Amino acid sequence: MPDPVPLALTLGDPAGIGPELALAAWLQRDRHSLQPFFVCGGRRVLEEAAAHCGLKLAIAAIDDPSATDAQFDAALPVLEGKDGHYGPGSPSEAGATIARASLEQGTRLAQDGRAGAVITGPVSKAQLAATGFTFPGQTEFLADAAGRGPDDVAMMIAGPSLRTVPLTIHVALAEVPARLTTGLIVSRARIVAAALERDFGLTRPRLAIAGLNPHAGENGTFGDEEARIIAPAIAALEADGLSVTGPHPADALFAPRARTTYDAALCMYHDQALVPVKALDFDQGVNVTLGLPFIRTAPDHGTAFAIAGKGIADPGATIAALKMAGEMAARRG
Amino acid sequence: MPDPVPLALTLGDPAGIGPELALAAWLQRDRHSLQPFFVCGGRRVLEEAAAHCGLKLAIAAIDDPSATDAQFDAALPVLEGKDGHYGPGSPSEAGATIARASLEQGTRLAQDGRAGAVITGPVSKAQLAATGFTFPGQTEFLADAAGRGPDDVAMMIAGPSLRTVPLTIHVALAEVPARLTTGLIVSRARIVAAALERDFGLTRPRLAIAGLNPHAGENGTFGDEEARIIAPAIAALEADGLSVTGPHPADALFAPRARTTYDAALCMYHDQALVPVKALDFDQGVNVTLGLPFIRTAPDHGTAFAIAGKGIADPGATIAALKMAGEMAARRG
Repeated sequence: MPDPVPLALTLGDPAGIGPELALAAWLQRDRHSLQPFFVCGGRRVLEEAAAHCGLKLAIAAIDDPSATDAQFDAALPVLEGKDGHYGPGSPSEAGATIARASLEQGTRLAQDGRAGAVITGPVSKAQLAATGFTFPGQTEFLADAAGRGPDDVAMMIAGPSLRTVPLTIHVALAEVPARLTTGLIVSRARIVAAALERDFGLTRPRLAIAGLNPHAGENGTFGDEEARIIAPAIAALEADGLSVTGPHPADALFAPRARTTYDAALCMYHDQALVPVKALDFDQGVNVTLGLPFIRTAPDHGTAFAIAGKGIADPGATIAALKMAGEMAARRG
Repeated sequence: MPDPVPLALTLGDPAGIGPELALAAWLQRDRHSLQPFFVCGGRRVLEEAAAHCGLKLAIAAIDDPSATDAQFDAALPVLEGKDGHYGPGSPSEAGATIARASLEQGTRLAQDGRAGAVITGPVSKAQLAATGFTFPGQTEFLADAAGRGPDDVAMMIAGPSLRTVPLTIHVALAEVPARLTTGLIVSRARIVAAALERDFGLTRPRLAIAGLNPHAGENGTFGDEEARIIAPAIAALEADGLSVTGPHPADALFAPRARTTYDAALCMYHDQALVPVKALDFDQGVNVTLGLPFIRTAPDHGTAFAIAGKGIADPGATIAALKMAGEMAARRG
């Protein structure tokens, strides 16, 4: 079997914790048996971050991803790319330009197969917008780069305890009920089931669909979305031959015993999906974009400007994102 | 110091897991150092439940709560009251009549001080309604019995990992935003703060208030309830001298580190409060009614008709409810 293609890790905002997480992940490469990865650009940023955080490590400039393997044991490989200065806690347009270039480089390499996956560091959406970046976030950029619409992909948050998929994300809670449709649930569930089979090695993955209302509406006593929108989606998915249950009362769905009954929970809104993962698996949650032609994972946290440069950021989620991307890439072969 | 007044445990629906939980809790009285308690009525129900579940224990009929202490070491004391048959898994109007009589008896005894607290077993709202019980649930019955309106009390769910208070409960998610008002948040927060001080022994309890929208609206990007409704409530509570923070993004609020920064989290809707407690503390969650003149706790689960009589119901939450009620009663002295 040939060596696996190395993974591309993007820098994230040079004012956030992305650079120090890249360093920390490489320092723990043996303990976590990490597959070789390289950072997309920002060699000076990383060197300054290492000095600032008091981390001792070698950084090796490479001019092609294929040079990763030869360096990875002894030094953190950094691909030539846009560079600048490390500015912990001080976001700027210059920093966002570096973050954006790193994202674009990593995406290109994952698309053309020179990287086995792209693992994206945390960026500031507000700073990116100032550079003319027109996407609400990295996920939408990646979908567009792959020629997919925002409805062709699904965001999954995966931790050691559970996997959840929010069907609506950054919308006001008051707007959630109107955004839910049977078609949305069906199409996302198909994406999730296919990805769990292809990339996570699960045969006939079990999906649990949460209700929207307390107690899943208690037979229509509070809210009818379960009967009107969610149940028809479940029927359609069952007709497809998928393993689907629900609508489940959300408060019971994340209890320990319930979590053993499904491989992923489809949730109706952001906090229904994110509250249980962060309560149970904080600092270990991985954001995976399903439905892309290439593999993309990310640590499920933000830039954390307030603690950048202090050397206290927990690299757990970045390490988990690198590991998961490596495993997914191995399954695609 | 005189012996504490015994605690009153109600039977719950005789077709549910309430009776077997009463037996199981008594059997574990020493391991959990439970304060003496008695069951309100239903001696035959309990005897039949013991026989059905294969539990060996003595049951002692008492005609007054004051007889509890003399019996508690050797037998489960059961106060004379309405009785009938144990019918695991088969709810009926006859069963609901027993459940209701037990609730009314326990409430009366807690009100007149002959019981140190009332701990309510799980009932079926649908079955209770068939008996002419006009309250949506036990909490509303208890508030009314105490001459309080539904807005004078607050429901708190308390587990080993955290305490949460849902500000809206059994309403459709679509109706939640319209139900939230600054006044509601302020009045509930005052009830919670006073109860944490009086009954939980906390000096200047720290309240965290959750946002409604994802990321607490991200500065108004998705939803304005944080600025329009929640922030003014926090300002008013701070002006009262209370220790209050927020509005916090809900997904971050229940992570391990965040949980150390408050004594109770006020949540905008049912699942925001219940999902983290059940994910972290399933089978140990206690429902406490704050703002009543007497003490009331309950295990935070339902009748579980489907598993009643199998002897597999976990008594953890009932034991926790008994322990918490005993501790609260001791603080009131």
